Formats: sequence, structure tokens, C-alpha cells
Amino acid sequence: MKFRRSERLIDMTTYLLEHPRQLVPLTYFAEKYGSAKSSISEDLGIIKETFEQRGIGVLQTVPGAAGGVKFHVHVSDEKARKVIDELCTVMASPDRLLPGGYLFMNDILGNPAIVQEVGRLLASAFAEKDIEVVMTVATKGIPIAYAVASNLNVPVVIVRRDSKVTEGSTVSINYVSGSSKRIQTMVLSKRSLAEGSKVLIVDDFMKAGGTVNGMINLLEEFNADLAGIAVLVESENIEERLVDEYLSLVRLSDVDVKERKITVSEGNYFARRE
Amino acid sequence: MKFRRSERLIDMTTYLLEHPRQLVPLTYFAEKYGSAKSSISEDLGIIKETFEQRGIGVLQTVPGAAGGVKFHVHVSDEKARKVIDELCTVMASPDRLLPGGYLFMNDILGNPAIVQEVGRLLASAFAEKDIEVVMTVATKGIPIAYAVASNLNVPVVIVRRDSKVTEGSTVSINYVSGSSKRIQTMVLSKRSLAEGSKVLIVDDFMKAGGTVNGMINLLEEFNADLAGIAVLVESENIEERLVDEYLSLVRLSDVDVKERKITVSEGNYFARRE
Repeated sequence: MKFRRSERLIDMTTYLLEHPRQLVPLTYFAEKYGSAKSSISEDLGIIKETFEQRGIGVLQTVPGAAGGVKFHVHVSDEKARKVIDELCTVMASPDRLLPGGYLFMNDILGNPAIVQEVGRLLASAFAEKDIEVVMTVATKGIPIAYAVASNLNVPVVIVRRDSKVTEGSTVSINYVSGSSKRIQTMVLSKRSLAEGSKVLIVDDFMKAGGTVNGMINLLEEFNADLAGIAVLVESENIEERLVDEYLSLVRLSDVDVKERKITVSEGNYFARRE
Repeated sequence: MKFRRSERLIDMTTYLLEHPRQLVPLTYFAEKYGSAKSSISEDLGIIKETFEQRGIGVLQTVPGAAGGVKFHVHVSDEKARKVIDELCTVMASPDRLLPGGYLFMNDILGNPAIVQEVGRLLASAFAEKDIEVVMTVATKGIPIAYAVASNLNVPVVIVRRDSKVTEGSTVSINYVSGSSKRIQTMVLSKRSLAEGSKVLIVDDFMKAGGTVNGMINLLEEFNADLAGIAVLVESENIEERLVDEYLSLVRLSDVDVKERKITVSEGNYFARRE
């Protein structure tokens, strides 16, 4: 069965989008469509150009016998600005104010379309880095962690507050939460994380950074390496931040419970990449 | 700026894949590319045909002034069979045996590529149903729930075991776990679920169905409607199943701890759809 160029373009686009950061040999496509490698090369040239022009991503060509193409998510600054602006608007809605100045975020974190966009954005910022695992802590960080990991084509490891029988043997640490100064526990299944893994820590919200810091301590227990930290929202006005280098999309500056006003601005996403 | 057909096909494919179950008016594409509606129609015809032939999904055309196109995930039986066979092979590996006959599943549930495939498969089975929300319970069901929800373009609602301050007011119920007969608690944020919502319950593992049954009771508290139940793995040899109608991909028949043998077979995915 022969395929027309238009059909090949549609099918290849789908395949590449579903297999980010995987090296696909040209022969894979050539055999799939019964086409000459030269035609596949031309197809990929068109896809590459369109992906770049439309801000979909980057198609990297790896030459040689073991070569092929690799798709990386890349979000253009223009698109990133739009996503972050929208996040800020949604975050600032006074409806999400809870007693004690906490913010209701379930509607944002429960929206797969938003979570996907956030995942693409964070993955895009770490696409060039050597990341092998995404780590998060249950529960609210999980959807963002998967959205990032699926774009980076790496597994997700979930740290828990409690140990469950289905985790097998676990390593547990105590850590001090940065804002409440309480001692808390974190547990990770031993089999989940291999020694020497390069780990990107992802979470939904960071105040003083106690939880993220706890995960960093856990990495040490596993002899794994910290490759980066990415959060959706960071809270400003923190006396002492426990974590130095991190990427954030949104910064929460102030919550005025009395006036019902939430003040947010863009995080360090653009600043950190400059 | 004018676009060639090949560029339009690539960009439209990307857009449609990223916006499942959303009605996209032809004028959206016509304006985006500065093309005549007739050209867009032709483009969509090619995409529709390729999506169907390659088992990517279905492109539904809605006629009339308020019309447009809608992309639905559809996994062909051939592809579904392959995914389920692979899941069975992975599940049967004796390495995942834990003390007490429990199974380690973190590697499967932590793999975003597998989770995506499972999500597409389950979403495909419910694509024709009127689903408005996906519900799951923390923690292990969350990734699958998001994978299903993103393909169905609906929000996710996460039931918890404990109440957190960031959830706002909550509704809590007690339920009896089916296998251990213990009384447990389930909590859902009041704002998470609107009355009358049509809910698809998704989980990773179902034994007697106590947890799923608990979620059904919770739906009643919210005056929401059960639209379906989908699980990755169901356990056989259950004396009394608390849940009647559900969809499963894999069936766990036997775990022989002494012989280190895990027996699995395909779930009711194909049987239920016939």
C-alpha cells in the first residue's frame, strides 16, 4: 500500500507528537509507508519548518547510520507569555479565597487542558537538560508532573506522606516544613528510583520550599542527582527560602483576605532563561 | 501570510489532537490560514480519512452555521488488542510480587507512555457516552484519570482519604472496603463537583469494588450521576463484587506467592463492547 504525501504528513505529525524525545530512524517511516528515504526526508523537512513556524516544537535531525529525527516540545515566548498571563488572570479570581487566606486551586489543577499547557511550558524549559526522571509529592503535584514527564518522555516517581503495602520496601525521611516549622515525613518506594538518576522535581505550589527541600534530601538518600526544580506557583514574601534555583510560572505576592484581593504576577520563567 | 496545504495539514492535525471533543468551526481554520472554506473542507477530508485509516481517531463533521469539526479518540480493535496484550505481559512479571501477594505497579503507573495508551483506550470506549467529569481517588488512580479526561476534554475530580485546608468545605462519607471489611473515609471538596454532573469513575485497581462503591455513594451525596466505571486491573476470584457494570483492561486471576506466578488475562474490554 502506497501513501500520498498528505497522508504521510498527517500520520508522521501524529506519531512525532506522541513520541517526544525519542529517536525515530528514517527507515521506520520509510518502511511504514513503503516510501523512499528521500521522500521521508522531504516530508520531515516540511514538518520541521511548520513545527518551528507554528511554535509546536523542534525537530532535531541526528545524522549517520544510527540517526533519525527527534521531536522536542518547544513553546515560543509569545505562546508562553499568553499561557502565563491567562494563569495569572485565573489565579487572581477572588472566588478562590478560602478561610485563612488559602487558595482553592482544584479547578485549575483539575483542568487537563490547563495542566497540559503547564506541562508543555515546563518541559520546554528543561528540554535541553539531561532529565531522566520527574519526581513529585502526592497529591496535587501529580497531574503537572505527568504532563511534564510525558513531554520529556521520562518516568514519574511519586513521593508519599505515608507508606502503603503496594509500594514494597520504602525509604522514609523526616523534614521540617518551611512555613509551619512542623516535622513531617516523606516516603519513597525503594524500587522507584535508580541510583544516579537525574531528577527534575515538580510541584504545584512552593512557599518556603520545605517540601521541595525534603525531596532534595530524599534524592541524597537514593544517591540520585537534582537536575532542576519547577513549580506552577511560588509564594512571595517568604522570610527565608530554603531552595535556591527553581523555575516558576506564577508568583503569588499577596492575599488580602479582608479586601478579598489576590495579587499575582508572572514567575521567574522568562527571567531565569535570559 | 498564505499557507501551503502541507503546512495546513500538519498544523491542523496538531490542533485537532490537542483539542479532542471540541467543536472547531471551519472559519477558525480559514481565518488562521487565510484560506477559503472550501480548501479547509478538502484538508479536513484528507485528515479524516487518514485518521480513520491509521487508527488515530474519528473526525466528526457537524453541518450548519454553528457547525464545524470535532475530533474523537478512537482506538481500533487491533491496536487495543496489542496494548492489552502488552499490559498482560508486563503485569505477569514475577518481579512485581510483594510480600502478602501484593503487586508492585509503580513502574507501570509511572510510565507516561503506558498511562497515555491506557487513557486513550478507556476514553475511546466512552467517547460516545455523555461524560462531563472524570472522578478518581488519590493516589494511584490519578494519572490514568487525567489521561482519560484529557482525551475526553473534561475536568478531573480527586477524592481524598483526608481533608486538607486547600480543599475548602468538603463532604465526607464512610464506606466499607470490600476486601478488608474495614470502615474507611472518603472526602470530596464541595466546589469540585456540580449537581447533576455525569461522572465517569476511573481507578487503577478494583478488588471487591468497595472503593468504587464508596465513590458511587459520594456521587449520591452530590446529586451527581454515574455515567460509567473504568479500571486498569480487576481482580478475579472475588466472593461478592459490589459493583455491577464496569470496564477493565486486565484481569488478575491468581497470584501464587510460593511459585512466584502471577496469572493475568484480558479484562472485559472487548466482551463488554460486543
